[in-house]
Amino acid sequence: MTQTLHTPQISDAQRRVEDDLVDRVVASFDNCDNPRLKQVMQSLTVHLHDFIRDVRLTEEEWNQAIEFLTQVGHITDDKRQEFVLLSDTLGASMQTIAVNNEAYEDATEATVFGPFFLDDAPEVAHGGDIAGDAQGQPAWVEGTVTDTDGNPVPGARIEVWECDEDGFYDVQYGDDRMAGRAYLHTDEQGTYRFWGLTPVPYPIPHDGPVGRMLQATGRSPVRAAHLHFMVTAPQYRTLVTHIFVDGDPQLEIGDSVFGVKDSLIKTFEQQPAGTPTPDGRDVSVMGDGTWAKTRFDIVLAPATT
Amino acid sequence: MTQTLHTPQISDAQRRVEDDLVDRVVASFDNCDNPRLKQVMQSLTVHLHDFIRDVRLTEEEWNQAIEFLTQVGHITDDKRQEFVLLSDTLGASMQTIAVNNEAYEDATEATVFGPFFLDDAPEVAHGGDIAGDAQGQPAWVEGTVTDTDGNPVPGARIEVWECDEDGFYDVQYGDDRMAGRAYLHTDEQGTYRFWGLTPVPYPIPHDGPVGRMLQATGRSPVRAAHLHFMVTAPQYRTLVTHIFVDGDPQLEIGDSVFGVKDSLIKTFEQQPAGTPTPDGRDVSVMGDGTWAKTRFDIVLAPATT
Repeated sequence: MTQTLHTPQISDAQRRVEDDLVDRVVASFDNCDNPRLKQVMQSLTVHLHDFIRDVRLTEEEWNQAIEFLTQVGHITDDKRQEFVLLSDTLGASMQTIAVNNEAYEDATEATVFGPFFLDDAPEVAHGGDIAGDAQGQPAWVEGTVTDTDGNPVPGARIEVWECDEDGFYDVQYGDDRMAGRAYLHTDEQGTYRFWGLTPVPYPIPHDGPVGRMLQATGRSPVRAAHLHFMVTAPQYRTLVTHIFVDGDPQLEIGDSVFGVKDSLIKTFEQQPAGTPTPDGRDVSVMGDGTWAKTRFDIVLAPATT
Repeated sequence: MTQTLHTPQISDAQRRVEDDLVDRVVASFDNCDNPRLKQVMQSLTVHLHDFIRDVRLTEEEWNQAIEFLTQVGHITDDKRQEFVLLSDTLGASMQTIAVNNEAYEDATEATVFGPFFLDDAPEVAHGGDIAGDAQGQPAWVEGTVTDTDGNPVPGARIEVWECDEDGFYDVQYGDDRMAGRAYLHTDEQGTYRFWGLTPVPYPIPHDGPVGRMLQATGRSPVRAAHLHFMVTAPQYRTLVTHIFVDGDPQLEIGDSVFGVKDSLIKTFEQQPAGTPTPDGRDVSVMGDGTWAKTRFDIVLAPATT
């Protein structure tokens, strides 16, 4: 991409002035006794200066950038992490995931973790309901967890979490409810199954500076509908991922945090009201009686890759 | 410099995954109806992703970066601007100055503005004292303001400001004192002269996250001794600069915000106690009676370059 960007024409003398400054900042880190920190700071310096030089950042724009970062800092608290939203909406979170989760054979792909995981969600039995009091269309989710040779992985811990039909996670209501999240383990055959909700699209919090950035740049704050998974098992690489809903119009518009991978888009088969459920559960009392079913077969990479 | 940085070896497939993500984030800004904002955001995206990819940023390091930025945001308030300190110590402020103040013939070079300017400093007459109640060695400063053809610029407004002998600006004391700052105008011959203080090195505020970054990377928080100037005159480019003190050891160690340019280093000639002053002022009652004198001839570029 870099080649398609504006390449400013500057004099050789000006280029030397700018190069010399970059060299001096890089050299200022030469005495850092932590080699990794030194590498990170020197690389950050070069790329930050390349950005300023490529766009010929004006002093007014620099002031606006300082003010923007200040606003991001001031809205951030224990409940609201605007720097994570900024990283997410610039694709930096997803790029960090990509760098650290290189493809391994046909192992399931990773995507963003997001800010809504809780580590004290309840356990459910196979076929149990993770929705709790969260409202939405019931969805039956089933699948297997295997290694890349197709061997089942029994006892894998599967954490799942999602928003309700209004697009809110339990933690966003500000009371103490816990709903739309649980964990379970695969059985001896490496299989799992549970009731959740058919995912719906929802906007990331967009009443702050990141939301204003998205608006100013003509971008949607909406995330494509998804159901979060985190799968852990000894000797396997931890998998943090989502499944997305085939047919969701937001897949075309674009996921606001760039989390979508084609391999993670799954069909949620719509079932008319009255269709018998896999486990005989009566869903006729829930909403309009319709439900959906989907399958997500998970392949774990070994931990040592 | 980029060539000297670590270039990671990754598979073609992995490179395609990472390239594809960058392309998608860049494309997300395609609908921005402000062409300049679009250019800035797309360039930022490319350079931010290049940084993450070049250093193969780990998820733990990403977490540390989010936490660092959060701390920078939380210490920032009306009095303390830690994002400016961060920009300064990464050389980003100085690079922005460099980009916007290209050399014009032999016009005086610009440097960083810093956070300590006030727009309501008092006026002093020629030969007046800008130090007020600020303590330090008296320094006589004189010079001319001319254009690049050597013609005097009468009536140019010269703002000067500096710290006291303890390294503190008036505003850092938290009371309402105003000292170590003033403005004056050049006379019909384009000359100026005033009494100030011989500048001393001082550390930037280093009790926050930026100070911890400097410590972790083995860098000094100290700024080379300097006296701030801002010179404005109709039809000329506004000049924001400093003069530095030849012989200051911090010039060798390195200015913490990279503001030094060789052309801005001036001799402050030390005068033994009892040496007559240029205007007959009796400085024997101030400190040990020694004083210094320096000359700073300022050349302004035309406003239209």
